[in-house]
Amino acid sequence: MNSEPDKSGDNAVVVLSGGQDSTTCLYWALDRFRGGAIESVTFDYGQRHRREIDAARKIAAHANVPNTVLPIDTFAAIGGDALTDAGIAVPGADASQGALPATFVPGRNLVFLTYAAAFAWKRGIDHLVAGMAQTDYSGYPDCRRETLDALERALELGLERNFTIHTPLMHLTKKETVLLARDLGALPVMAMTHTCYKGERPPCGDCAACRLRARGFAEAGIDDPLVAT
Amino acid sequence: MNSEPDKSGDNAVVVLSGGQDSTTCLYWALDRFRGGAIESVTFDYGQRHRREIDAARKIAAHANVPNTVLPIDTFAAIGGDALTDAGIAVPGADASQGALPATFVPGRNLVFLTYAAAFAWKRGIDHLVAGMAQTDYSGYPDCRRETLDALERALELGLERNFTIHTPLMHLTKKETVLLARDLGALPVMAMTHTCYKGERPPCGDCAACRLRARGFAEAGIDDPLVAT
Repeated sequence: MNSEPDKSGDNAVVVLSGGQDSTTCLYWALDRFRGGAIESVTFDYGQRHRREIDAARKIAAHANVPNTVLPIDTFAAIGGDALTDAGIAVPGADASQGALPATFVPGRNLVFLTYAAAFAWKRGIDHLVAGMAQTDYSGYPDCRRETLDALERALELGLERNFTIHTPLMHLTKKETVLLARDLGALPVMAMTHTCYKGERPPCGDCAACRLRARGFAEAGIDDPLVAT
Repeated sequence: MNSEPDKSGDNAVVVLSGGQDSTTCLYWALDRFRGGAIESVTFDYGQRHRREIDAARKIAAHANVPNTVLPIDTFAAIGGDALTDAGIAVPGADASQGALPATFVPGRNLVFLTYAAAFAWKRGIDHLVAGMAQTDYSGYPDCRRETLDALERALELGLERNFTIHTPLMHLTKKETVLLARDLGALPVMAMTHTCYKGERPPCGDCAACRLRARGFAEAGIDDPLVAT
């Protein structure tokens, strides 16, 4: 699949949100660490839509991978972002005002990966897999690889374990992510994923997340099994 | 107080646990950022002793600094460490087995500082102050400056804000920390702090934390106001 050292037989923890990207990562990990044990963690951080967590559980069960839902009540206590605060409207695709979108939860991915590392540490696992992509960088600076390199270093030093944060989608376009899912045999399971910021199913088709997803499938020339159902 | 650039008038967030070190840091911040607004955050992460959180609240009120208690339920869900898991015995001073003590909560300080940064981000604050000291490095690798430098970089990149993590105690001995508290006029408030791992008051005097504290005061030639009361 790639030219990096053979990691088959190693164990890994996948951060599984229940969306398209993290689900593709789960199947990437099952391929990359073939023969090893894969675990998945899903964060219940007060996101508006329980549907996302339900999707993660179902996808993990479907893939025969243990799934642990870890609660995070801290972001809601810090408050003030559209993904966890019911009082703030989710902006449309072009409504991002200022430098960062209203859906930005400061530090979210750093916290997710630090908890994933703590979870992995308890189990003697070195490999973390997550779905961040540079495509999202303009909106979410904690998605870029440079941020994760710094975090990887902090985790290595702070937990005294040689963690690697794998981000197989980092430099892929949405089209390429769809093609990767196809190559991994993960297309059918895409029907189980959740993407819509508004929590609708079938997806609203209008929010930024829905539009990004639709464009990826369209450019790949593949029907989205979620929309088709 | 030091030769770094003048930061008076800047605002800062202090991570206040209610212990001796973070309380000294609070007073350090009040001196260093004189004229600025100081806020404090305290984490309720399932530590065995509510007394620690009560101490933080009282100390902040005494110092006239707003205090926000932020809940963290995630460590308890990940499980398996002596500071949050009632099923695991707290080891005595010399009982640390293996590379890391049973009281090590993997990633704790990384999570604390990332949340403090998220809290500061919402308020437009750049300065974070925390009580980590290299003295604790052998037991807690997330206390060393090298770890925090990597985290500072991750926070800068991930939250797009020029954070500085101030650790005024980093290179001080426990004796020097006691002398710093004295110089800052913070000795009386030490009677309000909580240190004992066993949650006893007056402190048990036997656990690793109590012994470390007692040695610091003894070497400084100062009576510990907590023990004297």
